[in-house]
Amino acid sequence: MKVFIVGIGLIGGSFALDLKAGIPGISIAGIDGNEDHLKQALELGLIDRMSTMEDIHDADLVYLAIPVDASIKVLPEVLDRVKDDCVVIDAGSTKENICRVVEDHAKRRNFLAAHPIAGTEFSGPQAAIHGLFRNKTNIICEVEKTAFKLQEKALEVFQKIGMRIRYMDARSHDRHIAYVSHLSHISSFMLGKTVLEKEKNERDIFDLAGSGFASTVRLAKSSPAMWAPIFSQNKKNVLETLNEYILNLQHFRKLMQEDNFDQLYQEMDRTNHIKEVLNGINKNEELKLQENGK
Amino acid sequence: MKVFIVGIGLIGGSFALDLKAGIPGISIAGIDGNEDHLKQALELGLIDRMSTMEDIHDADLVYLAIPVDASIKVLPEVLDRVKDDCVVIDAGSTKENICRVVEDHAKRRNFLAAHPIAGTEFSGPQAAIHGLFRNKTNIICEVEKTAFKLQEKALEVFQKIGMRIRYMDARSHDRHIAYVSHLSHISSFMLGKTVLEKEKNERDIFDLAGSGFASTVRLAKSSPAMWAPIFSQNKKNVLETLNEYILNLQHFRKLMQEDNFDQLYQEMDRTNHIKEVLNGINKNEELKLQENGK
Repeated sequence: MKVFIVGIGLIGGSFALDLKAGIPGISIAGIDGNEDHLKQALELGLIDRMSTMEDIHDADLVYLAIPVDASIKVLPEVLDRVKDDCVVIDAGSTKENICRVVEDHAKRRNFLAAHPIAGTEFSGPQAAIHGLFRNKTNIICEVEKTAFKLQEKALEVFQKIGMRIRYMDARSHDRHIAYVSHLSHISSFMLGKTVLEKEKNERDIFDLAGSGFASTVRLAKSSPAMWAPIFSQNKKNVLETLNEYILNLQHFRKLMQEDNFDQLYQEMDRTNHIKEVLNGINKNEELKLQENGK
Repeated sequence: MKVFIVGIGLIGGSFALDLKAGIPGISIAGIDGNEDHLKQALELGLIDRMSTMEDIHDADLVYLAIPVDASIKVLPEVLDRVKDDCVVIDAGSTKENICRVVEDHAKRRNFLAAHPIAGTEFSGPQAAIHGLFRNKTNIICEVEKTAFKLQEKALEVFQKIGMRIRYMDARSHDRHIAYVSHLSHISSFMLGKTVLEKEKNERDIFDLAGSGFASTVRLAKSSPAMWAPIFSQNKKNVLETLNEYILNLQHFRKLMQEDNFDQLYQEMDRTNHIKEVLNGINKNEELKLQENGK
């Protein structure tokens, strides 16, 4: 199978590593606007050769792992060029726009809209890691618009690298992901900003910051080149979650100002229920492990 | 050495485990308002015997690891009862109030105000873990107000369990810790609340939430019994950090509303500098490991 990966960073590079481990004899070509990244990807053994859009007609499978603003420009061009039995999969964190952009494309049935719930706060080919996708969920949107044989081919690949599938409409995806992913990034970025602005003497941060701070601010290390387009593409949903978050913080502040610490206690006590939700996520992970016979 | 630990939960219990591992022949008595916790602590081998305030005159060292509102009530009573060469150490996350409460106490010189930058989001004796304090920073406030011999005795104990010491005045401690710890807890609790309120169908949270969400919302599992008093005691500083955090979020929202994604990119790019701060924390940890010859 000839695979072309467009965007050979954390996600594209990790996908390449897992493909190589899971599918013997696979050939992986890389395409990237950043020449240095492309060379690094080759040196790191993520890809077998550097390629360009001119050769993409050769592909059996194309994986699009570039920022979401670039995806909506590149996808129609990729679809124009690929052969009829090639499946083109994207990995973007927003799904409504990309589905809309190709909804009337002659080769819409060659496209599978997907979002792997996998990643780290790092980016670039050197951030690629083995097994990033193992036991992770891959959200697939509008599967009915993809040719049956092609979605079957894609699923086979996802299965080989250990992913779990969940189907969802693009609108629900974008609304839910705003809450459990996009808002987390804003809360983390603004927490980092608030502390950096205040603590000019960083020595004090080093000494007083524990694992709790590191955990809540981790996502503030994420790539702006990836995240600015996500916030732009999912603007309506993200603004809704952000409004609610700010209202909740203002309510918390009001309770503090009024010395209503009993009510504050109740707020936190109710939110402790997140324990069960997170345990649920962990149990889900265990379940996936069992399902995969690992 | 006879040690009395008042409050045998995560911090008191972990301190007990480390003491036992680091100081042969030590005897540890536990005092706790919660009879069940006290029994559990005995069964778990955290303490050697259950005790009460009536016996505390026997102690060579008292470790106070209870919520900060309880500490300011219990500390004067403990100081009233202990013998002259006993050192009483607290572990509270706020330091101004507790120092003020005993500033005119006849036995002020028996008290050492400390805050170990160590912990997890869990609580109770069953949350106690071995090595929690190893290579962690212990902030000591107003050391000049503690009798020299007694602070020396305390430092020897801290050294034996592998802690690193940093001195700070109580006011600076409370101001800085509001930024790098207390604010993180509020951002996390309110993030958890926002998502829980919205996602009534938790199945969707399980499937779409990745490690990023788990990381930012982890602190929302923390104990309200511990945190409501901290917010109350450090009200002024916490409100200041919370105001700035809300302003930063409102600014982020404004940029989004105006479609000013270039500026948003710059904001995130500048905040990426948190990478170096977090690397600094990690380097600090490594340095501590080296210093300790580990």
